[in-house]
Amino acid sequence: MWNKNFPVIVVFMLFGFPAMAQQALGGGTQIVSPEIQSNNTVIFRLQAPNAREVKISGDWMPAQGWTPGSEAMMKEETGVWVYISTALSSDLHSYSFTVDGMKCTDPNNVWLIRDVASVFNVFIVGGGNADLYKVNPVIHGTVARRWYDSPTLGMSRRITIYTPAGYESGKEKYPVLYLLHGMGGDEEAWIALGRATQILDNLIAQGKAKPMIVAMSNGNVAQEAAPGESSLGFYKPTMQLPNSMDGKFEETFPDIIKFIEGNYRVKAEKSGRAIAGLSMGGFHSLHVSRLYTNVFDYVGLFSAAILPNDKVTSKVYSDLDQTLNRQMKNGYKLYWIGIGKADFLFKYNQEFRARLDQMGMKYVYRESEGGHTWTNWRVYLSEFAPLLFK
Amino acid sequence: MWNKNFPVIVVFMLFGFPAMAQQALGGGTQIVSPEIQSNNTVIFRLQAPNAREVKISGDWMPAQGWTPGSEAMMKEETGVWVYISTALSSDLHSYSFTVDGMKCTDPNNVWLIRDVASVFNVFIVGGGNADLYKVNPVIHGTVARRWYDSPTLGMSRRITIYTPAGYESGKEKYPVLYLLHGMGGDEEAWIALGRATQILDNLIAQGKAKPMIVAMSNGNVAQEAAPGESSLGFYKPTMQLPNSMDGKFEETFPDIIKFIEGNYRVKAEKSGRAIAGLSMGGFHSLHVSRLYTNVFDYVGLFSAAILPNDKVTSKVYSDLDQTLNRQMKNGYKLYWIGIGKADFLFKYNQEFRARLDQMGMKYVYRESEGGHTWTNWRVYLSEFAPLLFK
Repeated sequence: MWNKNFPVIVVFMLFGFPAMAQQALGGGTQIVSPEIQSNNTVIFRLQAPNAREVKISGDWMPAQGWTPGSEAMMKEETGVWVYISTALSSDLHSYSFTVDGMKCTDPNNVWLIRDVASVFNVFIVGGGNADLYKVNPVIHGTVARRWYDSPTLGMSRRITIYTPAGYESGKEKYPVLYLLHGMGGDEEAWIALGRATQILDNLIAQGKAKPMIVAMSNGNVAQEAAPGESSLGFYKPTMQLPNSMDGKFEETFPDIIKFIEGNYRVKAEKSGRAIAGLSMGGFHSLHVSRLYTNVFDYVGLFSAAILPNDKVTSKVYSDLDQTLNRQMKNGYKLYWIGIGKADFLFKYNQEFRARLDQMGMKYVYRESEGGHTWTNWRVYLSEFAPLLFK
Repeated sequence: MWNKNFPVIVVFMLFGFPAMAQQALGGGTQIVSPEIQSNNTVIFRLQAPNAREVKISGDWMPAQGWTPGSEAMMKEETGVWVYISTALSSDLHSYSFTVDGMKCTDPNNVWLIRDVASVFNVFIVGGGNADLYKVNPVIHGTVARRWYDSPTLGMSRRITIYTPAGYESGKEKYPVLYLLHGMGGDEEAWIALGRATQILDNLIAQGKAKPMIVAMSNGNVAQEAAPGESSLGFYKPTMQLPNSMDGKFEETFPDIIKFIEGNYRVKAEKSGRAIAGLSMGGFHSLHVSRLYTNVFDYVGLFSAAILPNDKVTSKVYSDLDQTLNRQMKNGYKLYWIGIGKADFLFKYNQEFRARLDQMGMKYVYRESEGGHTWTNWRVYLSEFAPLLFK
């Protein structure tokens, strides 16, 4: 009753993919792109025999102001355009192509990350910092996307939570790092662009960081969830959202702490709480930690968007000196400020440091090369996490 | 000490994105694509003023065998290429463009799904089946990516677990659906392409399905985790993996049950267990459920890859009639077979039905239009889940 002449091609095509995926099998020449060579130069290839001009734009190329750098690719006789980079730093790098003026991603690289309304290809060059961003053969934590009630906002909101290996099967209590994203980001940013899962897994496995829970909330109070993950459906994300820096996030932050401490086995005490964030999230961390002055023992400002006082009008932002003073007097274990020399916020961070110096408020200062980039924020997290909960 | 002349442009550019993301802001004309109109026709747009030929390939277009259908886009004076579809069915649809012979995604649509080594843009047309695939304003469950030990494989492996709203804060025990992917898929397939989170959230909120845990394991025993999520790093995924259909998955399935039942509040009894899968996952469901004949009360075969006996050589696949007979005699509540009329596996599913008929083994049969597609598998899950654990 069974057909003995079961064709091999059917066996190949048997299982679990729509017709379109067939293109992946029947596409002729297999193009490899990117190809990371042992000396950390990277070869990029794009089959576009009919194109007249192909450029590549990579995050390692010098930008002109806010315009990313780009370089020409060279067409080979096969119709494949090729570009070979210089030796690249160890990092998660991003790039895209421009074909006859049209920006596009690399069809041979399925690894893509969305940043606001742009999608880039990514790859990892190891041998340095980025070894922490790789999935390594270590014991892995869990990453959960959950929804919590925010009574203050009258919303159910999505949050990403990392629990370290052993949390689910154990009984002990863990400290919590509240890790905040920047403008245009959401509760997926630290996972996708920040490689927070891998950084924590690796640091904990190496014994360099204490096992901790990491709560990655959404700092845009107008949003229930990341674009595509709420009832707004699939829409084109935008950078600007209302109410992200008007004090509402800070006012509603206790909802997040209450959710975490009510639903996880945590050290619900000052010495078990850290808060850190990048850019807008650094701004949020600064203000949340001084508003709730006796709640966090660890504060991290990564390229913090420290706005001048006259630009932030909510009463939440008044009494800056007074509340910082109270925070100082209540005591804390670590106040960490990281900023890149080329960051457009460098000056504001220096002014903030001067303010803290004047008050006698202690902090650890980390000045890095580069600017307002995920390259820096991944490094800052890698350096900050080991200092926590000691 | 604060700079009063804080430029507006800096406020706009303040927070949390690399320089490349600026492209999203400075890109000139805002192209909207896809634009779903009220009559369910969809407008696609691509700005490619220098292109000579642009085509669109959509999963709703009739394919020629395994070659997906495609249609020409028309260039407008602005340099934007446009295509307007017919009224589309309610579904999660996928598409891509071909520009002067080069396949690419839609740069104005950030919603992308990887299927093996191809990446497609997606969008949802509501008003029918796909209302279940949307994130609706209902109470949401949790989706966790965890790692479990598989002693039988000597591996730590990644698994995706859906817990229904209320699980984490409650005390009662829940039934479990083990939901398996097809060849080329992994533990992300049912979440990304299958919209399992949304389907379950919506069916449970509507009272149509019982709250249940859904365990989505990786059926490729050679893999620790989905491509990009293991220590193999970012590589180009392939359809074919060793040992996916040689009995190893079935032999090691108890590791998964043990993990779930040891780590979740579940109804650890036959009436609280269901297993279902698509294509290769249907094959796995068939064999797991008859090997462990008294373990599952509910079995779902979605376009199951029911291989002829002489093509599967492991001893795991021998004694088919005998074990099915035992399964029948032990009893079960539902044996569900779904297949599309145009599926290349249609014939094998009919032969399997004839075998069951001959044995007197009861099943529910669902014949749909269409072929071996996620369109069908999403529908099958939407119909199967409400039948469970009643």
